Amino acid sequence: MKFSRFIINDKIKYGIVERNLIRVISGDLYGDWEYTSEEYSVDQVKLLTPIIPNQIIGIGRNYVTNIDEKPSVLPEIPVFFMKPTSSIIGPNDDIFLPKTIDKVKFESELAVIIGKEAKNIAEDEVLHYIFGYTVSNDVTAPQFFHEDGHWMVGKSFDTFTPLGPYVVTDINPFKVKVKARVNNIEKQNSGTDLMIFSINKMVSYLSEVMTLKQGDIILTGSPVGAELVITGDIVECEIEEIGKLNNRVF
Amino acid sequence: MKFSRFIINDKIKYGIVERNLIRVISGDLYGDWEYTSEEYSVDQVKLLTPIIPNQIIGIGRNYVTNIDEKPSVLPEIPVFFMKPTSSIIGPNDDIFLPKTIDKVKFESELAVIIGKEAKNIAEDEVLHYIFGYTVSNDVTAPQFFHEDGHWMVGKSFDTFTPLGPYVVTDINPFKVKVKARVNNIEKQNSGTDLMIFSINKMVSYLSEVMTLKQGDIILTGSPVGAELVITGDIVECEIEEIGKLNNRVF
Repeated sequence: MKFSRFIINDKIKYGIVERNLIRVISGDLYGDWEYTSEEYSVDQVKLLTPIIPNQIIGIGRNYVTNIDEKPSVLPEIPVFFMKPTSSIIGPNDDIFLPKTIDKVKFESELAVIIGKEAKNIAEDEVLHYIFGYTVSNDVTAPQFFHEDGHWMVGKSFDTFTPLGPYVVTDINPFKVKVKARVNNIEKQNSGTDLMIFSINKMVSYLSEVMTLKQGDIILTGSPVGAELVITGDIVECEIEEIGKLNNRVF
Repeated sequence: MKFSRFIINDKIKYGIVERNLIRVISGDLYGDWEYTSEEYSVDQVKLLTPIIPNQIIGIGRNYVTNIDEKPSVLPEIPVFFMKPTSSIIGPNDDIFLPKTIDKVKFESELAVIIGKEAKNIAEDEVLHYIFGYTVSNDVTAPQFFHEDGHWMVGKSFDTFTPLGPYVVTDINPFKVKVKARVNNIEKQNSGTDLMIFSINKMVSYLSEVMTLKQGDIILTGSPVGAELVITGDIVECEIEEIGKLNNRVF
């Protein structure tokens, strides 16, 4: 199932995407919903970020370049961080550079959406708590990282979390490729099997720390190839099974 | 005005506290509300965390011990971090130790509640965007700090953010004392004039990075004296003009 959120005639609606068609739904995205009789072509509407998250949690330094570089022992404490939900923008929205800098880093990522409250979840139970997956660009201004390692300011600017275009519920998250292109030149293209903390391990670990809630989003890390971009660059993050996020740097 | 949120007969209600009496209100806490005819004595009800935050942002290392230690030049990037809202507990709830450790640190703090959307706010306009103030205990497990400086895991465990007992709207936040006692022995007692980044500077800086939203809570840092506590200890955080947060470590 491929969920979208979009705007048409000044109204925000949710729908299921089938090829080029969006069938509007009503009800609870995470629970009971039903089709209405409304339908639109994808080209007719403005796609919005497909889900309004409760909170955003990210993991840093989570990919190796080659499978044989995976550490035999995992780091004891993963590099987790949080981003404010105010940083979210939709597919096709612009990424605004903070006024004192002229470059930011893009990071294409698979984003996991928690579907129901999750506490102390075993690794092999994790997938039952995931509602779906989308693509995100964890935009980062390393110029605003604190010298003692704190990332919050550098990751929190408005427009720093493009998210979308769809939430897909039925992919195999262990076998997709996370890609990015800048001005049509490929920069990132790695399988999610190159994650150091797999989705199972990461969500299980987090759920031992905190109660994950419906709508919490976990950005699962970015593969090799993230770079700095400047005004005018167009960053396209893609996971083929989900779709493309296309954002211009402004 | 002193706002409370509480539970009585299995129902959650909001009210205004006047001495020992809570007058129940209905409506929008941040906007139009009115008194109902219901009243309770404070002793009759179970006080809950007085507000359900949108997000929690904290600032680290924000107090000097004496006023003459204040740096003449402020650090360029404040140490900001975020905590998940799932970590919140009310006054009188227990703080649970993570299962693999036997100590956590308490940090008594003045918490600022944002009342309306705030972006690019000048320092002298900040108070117009603040709805009120409460007390928080920014409980921290330094054992889970990442060696490269990331604090997220160590600050995110369930029960790690006691908040309350009331939200007070009409105090002078620059002239209150932030106190903590452990088992009735005073550990912290400093005026908010010892902050390095004042509330004005901190909120103005944050608002240049991100759009602050109604219900965002900013923990403004903890004064000298925070210590580790163990099972059975009772931590009481207090700002006289607001009230006492009393939480046992379990």
